[in-house]
Amino acid sequence: MALKLYHAEPAANSLKSLIPLHERQLPFESVYVDLHKFEQHEPWFVAINPEGQVPVLDHDGFMVTHSTVINEYLEDAFPEAPPLRPSDPAGAARMRYWNKFIDEHVMNYVSMHGWHRMIGVLARGLESGEFEKLVARIPLYEQREKWRTARSGFSGADLANATRKIEVAVDKVEAQLKVTPWLAGDAFTLADVNFFSHCGMMIARMFPEIGNTARCPRTLEWADRVRARPGVAAALRMPDRTNPALRTFTGHVV
Amino acid sequence: MALKLYHAEPAANSLKSLIPLHERQLPFESVYVDLHKFEQHEPWFVAINPEGQVPVLDHDGFMVTHSTVINEYLEDAFPEAPPLRPSDPAGAARMRYWNKFIDEHVMNYVSMHGWHRMIGVLARGLESGEFEKLVARIPLYEQREKWRTARSGFSGADLANATRKIEVAVDKVEAQLKVTPWLAGDAFTLADVNFFSHCGMMIARMFPEIGNTARCPRTLEWADRVRARPGVAAALRMPDRTNPALRTFTGHVV
Repeated sequence: MALKLYHAEPAANSLKSLIPLHERQLPFESVYVDLHKFEQHEPWFVAINPEGQVPVLDHDGFMVTHSTVINEYLEDAFPEAPPLRPSDPAGAARMRYWNKFIDEHVMNYVSMHGWHRMIGVLARGLESGEFEKLVARIPLYEQREKWRTARSGFSGADLANATRKIEVAVDKVEAQLKVTPWLAGDAFTLADVNFFSHCGMMIARMFPEIGNTARCPRTLEWADRVRARPGVAAALRMPDRTNPALRTFTGHVV
Repeated sequence: MALKLYHAEPAANSLKSLIPLHERQLPFESVYVDLHKFEQHEPWFVAINPEGQVPVLDHDGFMVTHSTVINEYLEDAFPEAPPLRPSDPAGAARMRYWNKFIDEHVMNYVSMHGWHRMIGVLARGLESGEFEKLVARIPLYEQREKWRTARSGFSGADLANATRKIEVAVDKVEAQLKVTPWLAGDAFTLADVNFFSHCGMMIARMFPEIGNTARCPRTLEWADRVRARPGVAAALRMPDRTNPALRTFTGHVV
């Protein structure tokens, strides 16, 4: 078997699929895709993933896209490695409930703030003819619109709604962690990987007004427990080529 | 084992979980929740599902919500029944790719047109004090907003964007059906169940400008094949108490 992961910096969707590979000790070839150079929209990459997005898993030539789908695929394809999906149907359902919630109600809202602070700067740094040429290559309509909005600026109402969504999510996670040590129950699962990658890893630095010990002590303690896991630590040590001045996720708001 | 499904009319999310139960011949108790009477927001139902939405699966007291999660749970819990999830990892990944696409890029957009045509009429039929009292009971913020918007009317821009999303989805399905007989490959799977329930079953009647033989002959032929399956036909025969004047899905636009 040969596994290859096309990915960017160890954050958000890329981190989400890097963690299971490291945690489950599945040997893989790392192919870094430089989002700062818009490599994900270049013809060689669009030939691999017509949607022009990372991460992509290549397993002996079979391509899997979307991190939630990739992570379940890795469970199905390598059942002998330490699992991150509960083997009992109820546990798997709890895990998938959270994955769905995070995919639909968390990811895009943290992402909007990240784009607002980081991609907006990148986009406004481009001359408008050059910008439109880059945008024209983007396969997905939604992504083209997101780039244009990042350049012109997200509306205050949209950003406020995104903040509200993140508050709801953090309060929901905090309530769950009162009941169980991990999101889907007694074991660390793909649900924890998901929330950590899209929100937990950056909540304290990116949204200090939400991610503080007064509001969500359990969530912060949980994030420390996730970070301390050897596989997660290894994934987080993958190269980060983000311009330090643009590192929203390390708290440098520009 | 005792299975119980709380559901509404055989369309959209309710149909999506009724089909696997019938197709896989899993005996279950049907509990009809009358959305016209807003039963899904009544205390007895919110005690079962705090999100106040159908369908809900009760398996010996374990509650599963969200039709995509319910349908995977039924695969995990009843592996001996005829499967609707491919047993090979690649097939399961293809199925989940489609499920994610339909959940995130189809469901809400067909639903917006359905609400625009049907729920708006219901909502405007209520006196405003009574309407606000009903809305106040709705657990989810997004649902409260959707009811308010349905009453005041969705914007032309939002409806046009929803139409565009449906066009993209139908073209994508049509392209897939040039390559494989079913969405995820050679077998009928939960991906077909999903697209049929949220779009395929009503496309020709609800969006004749999209769902016609000039644009998507394969999709229409596929929908006929889905409808002809005994389990699907049985699910579609479940009671439909929608006021005939409000049956968007049968094409009576009001």
